[in-house]
Amino acid sequence: MTRFTKIGIALALTASATSIAYAQMKPEDAIRARQSIMRVVALNFGPVAQMAQGKMPWNKEAFVTNALRLESVWAMNPHRFFPAGSDKAVAGAKTASFTDTKPEAWSKGDDFKKAFETNGQAIGKLAAAAKSGDEAAMKAAVGDVGKACKGCHDDFRAK
Amino acid sequence: MTRFTKIGIALALTASATSIAYAQMKPEDAIRARQSIMRVVALNFGPVAQMAQGKMPWNKEAFVTNALRLESVWAMNPHRFFPAGSDKAVAGAKTASFTDTKPEAWSKGDDFKKAFETNGQAIGKLAAAAKSGDEAAMKAAVGDVGKACKGCHDDFRAK
Repeated sequence: MTRFTKIGIALALTASATSIAYAQMKPEDAIRARQSIMRVVALNFGPVAQMAQGKMPWNKEAFVTNALRLESVWAMNPHRFFPAGSDKAVAGAKTASFTDTKPEAWSKGDDFKKAFETNGQAIGKLAAAAKSGDEAAMKAAVGDVGKACKGCHDDFRAK
Repeated sequence: MTRFTKIGIALALTASATSIAYAQMKPEDAIRARQSIMRVVALNFGPVAQMAQGKMPWNKEAFVTNALRLESVWAMNPHRFFPAGSDKAVAGAKTASFTDTKPEAWSKGDDFKKAFETNGQAIGKLAAAAKSGDEAAMKAAVGDVGKACKGCHDDFRAK
């Protein structure tokens, strides 16, 4: 359980401890966390986007499952895992040997934070549509999530 | 949306397409997916284990949130992301430049699969306890998840 213990200490999620705990994360742990969360986000959004675009067979159950999981994982607040000092790949840390994040994520920190909030709102609407059971609403809600993802990647992620 | 499109194609989640889609994943995509899922699992289980052990202040809302998210992320079925041929780090693929998985994951494939199922059952009980609202039951359900994680890591993950 030692690995979990270490992670748990770094990630105390109680309201009072949160800001301190995240600021204390090592850059390599923060980079690994954000890359992992973003990949899980993509793994869930990918099929949802495909279905909405008719590039994958419609499967309502899979759509709803993925949309709700996307909301749950986004609630981990990936923005927290971009603390100051985590702007560079960490030599020797195999799990954080690269970062695609542009310096603008920190030099334009307010815009960066707002981009996450914008996507959070779009994901919230997608999840609400999934809960409603209205297939047309589900498909219609995908576009804004895709736009928010792309907008932030264009501005803050290196090609 | 091109990245998501690519991922979406690889991850068609409809029942009929699943086995084909996962078998077609590139080793680097499979390695990245499983490492990301496992890290997100750890990010959620860490605080839960800490709280159960009294090493972090008890926060029922955070415990329940994390336990249910753990169940949802585990339902992505991480075992699928260990296809044959994904046993080695991929040179030049920065996101899959290492794998900690031992060869036994494939040479003892039935045991490996069973280890995931065992953890899935333990996570299901943890989530059920979280939904029940019974704090003692929640804490009691953590141990089996930790044991299942550790057991599989001991057998199938390199130190």
